[in-house]
Amino acid sequence: MVKVGIINVTGYVGMELARLLHRHPGVELSVITGRSAVGQKLGEVLPHLAEIDLVIQPQLGDVDLVFSALPHKTSAEAVLPALERGIKVVDISADFRLKDAEEYPRWYDFAHPEPRLLEQAVYGLVELNRPAIAAARLVANPGCYPTGALLALAPAVKERLIEPDIVIDSKSGFSGAGRTLSLTTHFSEANENVAAYALDGHRHLPEIVQELAKLDPELSFSVTFVPHLVPMSRGILTSCYARLAEGKIAQDEKGREQIAKLYREFYRGEPFIRVVATPPQTKHCWGTNLCLVYPTIDVRTGRLIVISAIDNLIKGGAGQAIQNMNLMLGLAEGMALESTAVYP
Amino acid sequence: MVKVGIINVTGYVGMELARLLHRHPGVELSVITGRSAVGQKLGEVLPHLAEIDLVIQPQLGDVDLVFSALPHKTSAEAVLPALERGIKVVDISADFRLKDAEEYPRWYDFAHPEPRLLEQAVYGLVELNRPAIAAARLVANPGCYPTGALLALAPAVKERLIEPDIVIDSKSGFSGAGRTLSLTTHFSEANENVAAYALDGHRHLPEIVQELAKLDPELSFSVTFVPHLVPMSRGILTSCYARLAEGKIAQDEKGREQIAKLYREFYRGEPFIRVVATPPQTKHCWGTNLCLVYPTIDVRTGRLIVISAIDNLIKGGAGQAIQNMNLMLGLAEGMALESTAVYP
Amino acid sequence: MVKVGIINVTGYVGMELARLLHRHPGVELSVITGRSAVGQKLGEVLPHLAEIDLVIQPQLGDVDLVFSALPHKTSAEAVLPALERGIKVVDISADFRLKDAEEYPRWYDFAHPEPRLLEQAVYGLVELNRPAIAAARLVANPGCYPTGALLALAPAVKERLIEPDIVIDSKSGFSGAGRTLSLTTHFSEANENVAAYALDGHRHLPEIVQELAKLDPELSFSVTFVPHLVPMSRGILTSCYARLAEGKIAQDEKGREQIAKLYREFYRGEPFIRVVATPPQTKHCWGTNLCLVYPTIDVRTGRLIVISAIDNLIKGGAGQAIQNMNLMLGLAEGMALESTAVYP
Amino acid sequence: MVKVGIINVTGYVGMELARLLHRHPGVELSVITGRSAVGQKLGEVLPHLAEIDLVIQPQLGDVDLVFSALPHKTSAEAVLPALERGIKVVDISADFRLKDAEEYPRWYDFAHPEPRLLEQAVYGLVELNRPAIAAARLVANPGCYPTGALLALAPAVKERLIEPDIVIDSKSGFSGAGRTLSLTTHFSEANENVAAYALDGHRHLPEIVQELAKLDPELSFSVTFVPHLVPMSRGILTSCYARLAEGKIAQDEKGREQIAKLYREFYRGEPFIRVVATPPQTKHCWGTNLCLVYPTIDVRTGRLIVISAIDNLIKGGAGQAIQNMNLMLGLAEGMALESTAVYP
Repeated sequence: MVKVGIINVTGYVGMELARLLHRHPGVELSVITGRSAVGQKLGEVLPHLAEIDLVIQPQLGDVDLVFSALPHKTSAEAVLPALERGIKVVDISADFRLKDAEEYPRWYDFAHPEPRLLEQAVYGLVELNRPAIAAARLVANPGCYPTGALLALAPAVKERLIEPDIVIDSKSGFSGAGRTLSLTTHFSEANENVAAYALDGHRHLPEIVQELAKLDPELSFSVTFVPHLVPMSRGILTSCYARLAEGKIAQDEKGREQIAKLYREFYRGEPFIRVVATPPQTKHCWGTNLCLVYPTIDVRTGRLIVISAIDNLIKGGAGQAIQNMNLMLGLAEGMALESTAVYP
Repeated sequence: MVKVGIINVTGYVGMELARLLHRHPGVELSVITGRSAVGQKLGEVLPHLAEIDLVIQPQLGDVDLVFSALPHKTSAEAVLPALERGIKVVDISADFRLKDAEEYPRWYDFAHPEPRLLEQAVYGLVELNRPAIAAARLVANPGCYPTGALLALAPAVKERLIEPDIVIDSKSGFSGAGRTLSLTTHFSEANENVAAYALDGHRHLPEIVQELAKLDPELSFSVTFVPHLVPMSRGILTSCYARLAEGKIAQDEKGREQIAKLYREFYRGEPFIRVVATPPQTKHCWGTNLCLVYPTIDVRTGRLIVISAIDNLIKGGAGQAIQNMNLMLGLAEGMALESTAVYP
Repeated sequence: MVKVGIINVTGYVGMELARLLHRHPGVELSVITGRSAVGQKLGEVLPHLAEIDLVIQPQLGDVDLVFSALPHKTSAEAVLPALERGIKVVDISADFRLKDAEEYPRWYDFAHPEPRLLEQAVYGLVELNRPAIAAARLVANPGCYPTGALLALAPAVKERLIEPDIVIDSKSGFSGAGRTLSLTTHFSEANENVAAYALDGHRHLPEIVQELAKLDPELSFSVTFVPHLVPMSRGILTSCYARLAEGKIAQDEKGREQIAKLYREFYRGEPFIRVVATPPQTKHCWGTNLCLVYPTIDVRTGRLIVISAIDNLIKGGAGQAIQNMNLMLGLAEGMALESTAVYP
Repeated sequence: MVKVGIINVTGYVGMELARLLHRHPGVELSVITGRSAVGQKLGEVLPHLAEIDLVIQPQLGDVDLVFSALPHKTSAEAVLPALERGIKVVDISADFRLKDAEEYPRWYDFAHPEPRLLEQAVYGLVELNRPAIAAARLVANPGCYPTGALLALAPAVKERLIEPDIVIDSKSGFSGAGRTLSLTTHFSEANENVAAYALDGHRHLPEIVQELAKLDPELSFSVTFVPHLVPMSRGILTSCYARLAEGKIAQDEKGREQIAKLYREFYRGEPFIRVVATPPQTKHCWGTNLCLVYPTIDVRTGRLIVISAIDNLIKGGAGQAIQNMNLMLGLAEGMALESTAVYP
């Protein structure tokens, strides 16, 4: 069976990869590495994974494909040797998402170690990029916020239904902030609290703009993106706002039906996109690889509103990474990802 | 001492009024009524108020001023006899907020019983309306969402800094949904969940538009307002987005300073508005009558972003109502409202 | 394939049954009934189950086995006709748990409609009762609290390690209180709150005492059981306290090791019991059919302390019910129950 | 006016002291020190305290009384010079709570620097120790768990109603774990989770046993104390269990009334103790200095159950410290502590 490994299993996406890969019928999770806890059994470090009988290794051994769940910069460094050895890579960090190497110093404070790989790397948003992913040896797994935002906006942008002047207001649970400790994520301060952050520009902004531009290269997008932290562990709800382009769609109830139909067409046959008829709740896709999308029109103002919901650690992280892997290995796309939301 | 009463003390705003008025040094809380629990001691129905030695009455007796914390429609009906008896009224419901009687059937499903009172009623957003409130006998206490949105937008609108095409994205705790039971507010379903609601138009929208228009009657406002419920009990965070009007303010770091200065000027001396230098958290004003306001510019797009935070039951409800009462009775505006946020 | 049905799919255990049975490889979920929403698609009523293509029926049709997720009293009434038709039954309510029919008026306020069935019914705690369950046509699925308490205490009671004077202090998430609306489960009141309840005697007490007595019929048990509600959706943590019986086990570090070993022996081979070496967290078994058990000795006082953790809707409800079904149908016991905890 | 200072204002008890002292009518908060953030304005470090116009100092200056909110060991070291200068001290740490100096290496891993002060120090549980506190120059503020446990048990122990074999099961919010970062207090891991901890013996155990022994020196207490963390910021609910002593109180409904009456008598006139008639919720005293106490009898087993609820940062921390200060300075005991619970 195909052997896969996880670099840095002890973060939230890493442990979620382990959980899902452990039950994958088509691959064998054979190596896990960690920045800490090397030599310990996985179950000692992460009791909820006690049934996975693996020891955390210092080095990746012999695998066919590897997931890197390291932070940016470190990830690129760890992934290069694997690529050279011919191992396929799904990189969860941001290190291969941006096409323009000059964005890295600007947004991530480091010079990219291997800019030529940025060309090769395929942006792993399956629904917009399936054939390229299937052929790729290096896939850049999308950020959690871009996943929700792009899936919400893609049909409208592709069909030129909206003006390219867009507000994206996202609400994320705290697992999106990772496992690194901070006062912001300290329970007593995070609980019973809501706040916006990164108002000067969040790192996921250039990624969103880059991918929107691919959908319609003729347009010049003006995107304001403001993320918020809400007191829950998992889930991202993204609310997108943009004026309807003139003459494309009626600004009334009929327009609403048109837009819903258009979204359903756009995503017809997609196993993990569900265009829903009422505003989605993050809890409706909690624990799944689904993205729920609800498009509507504010008929008073002629604005398109699209709400999307994902589980940030699955469709916005580990699940999407496995969806990419399945494609890269020629496996059924949904393998290991067929869970139903755990509710309530 | 001046005697005041509360109609419908058993809802969230009603009980918060009782808590605050109980320690008010300038008025005596002499009557409380309820739709249920008549004849019971307040502390039996609401154990946290056990120290307030009052029995829930069927009828309002002899008072100088009354707060009505009834739902819409019922509130207007209850308030009319009090007004006729010469009792001053702070109405917490929406029944006297809208100037145009025809809005009531449209948004609240009832014909207003006394449209001529809509003219008399004063919209109780103190910071924008202080003199009229001081002279009023009927004050319409603002809705929780409009309070946060209007205080965020007023300086920019008044100074014509933005185009009148505005997106307001609000995140509210569940106490804003009141004490009436529903699946939406059932703990297991509300917990670990975020959702948008009222996408067809929330009842607070006409109120927001009406008051914005008062700030600049020459403009025609196009406002999209989308409220969201987040898993916490108290607090509203409001994120407002609008393009900067051309030629008014620089779209750079200097513009940011200008806008911050302008906001500080606008609210100079206001005891309950704090223009803050970093994005506010709802927890920073939890349990207080404060509104925290943070204006900034998205320099990449030339968009004004303003974030405001309030405690929806105090500045967005009972606290603002008492602020109005203090003015109407010629008392110091901040009486009973000087609390510091309880954190964490 | 074997056909199974769910009576009352719209409660929390009912919907969890549907979620798990939908992916069961050995049975077909062919009928679901509801007390409300008859005629609606399951996904309209419960959006997270949209992928299950079933309509809520008024009546159970032709099935081989049925789960009743009705409340007590109603459940017995619904189950009797099915039994008469030869359908096997797993009853989730309390209606067949107590052997003594006279307990029903005392604890559940109704006279049991068919006391002779109480003899036939098998108490469905698999780990203590496997052979009888495999042969049963009517299984009474244990209550959520008894599941956690009995699995924590069984080894110690069976081996006569403790005196029969026991304190059981349980902490439950709110889904255990069901989907029926109440102020207690209203988000704003339940959030940021902890309370004890049912101090006069919870309905699960006679069930606990009855099953402890079966483990050692010579002893007379004196059990104090106090449940508490904590602000989370799922999970029960049970803390049990009892004095060590004299002369059985050392009251020191060595005794701790003995007791841990003894518990591991007792549960050796059990697929869903994990005797753990550090105090368990409910989150470590969230979304699974596992029961985590941690026994230790308070060496200062000579008291046994056992902490257990379960997901109240799975091992304490739907999962255990399916485990029972698997046995009754001769299927592999763990079918549809092999999930790993979703963390964090 | 009397000048007071706070050593280490940036922890949770320190900031709560600042909040409460800021509005104290009888003292002036004149100095605050911090281990970090020296030289910064309080409002920069703690935005919710922006209205307190103080800068964090490196050293305590000239004050009449000081609160030390340092962790153990450090606190004793900081407090000694103040005592020598004749400054009265309320120490929030554990450094002066235990009478036997040998307990410090055992429970707190350090040798006490000034054992003779342990004799002088007065244990600051006002309800049991009022006269001594009023005369003290060094008060050891009780731990949060001991406060809840001792106030629950004191009447029963003092009146010899129970056997000295006691189980104390406490449920605490996360602010009790302080502001120091850890995975345990990381939001995503703490949320939707319950766990027991310190099963080998929590540091508050010797304090509880010592103070129970003072209430009845003839008895030898055997106490099992198990703390639990529940997903909320504030509040401790303590459930105490002990067998009724023989022949003292009837094991029936009449006994329940007797015990309730006895508790009410014991705490008659106490401004901050409320003996309640139904099981208390932590939310009912959230933000107050109250302790709610509910005693009852499990008539099936003859066991006394007492449930108490406090706000761990107020009655279990800063509020009780100020209550102590008020007594030490001859001020009205309730000054600055008269708040009503903020609910919901």
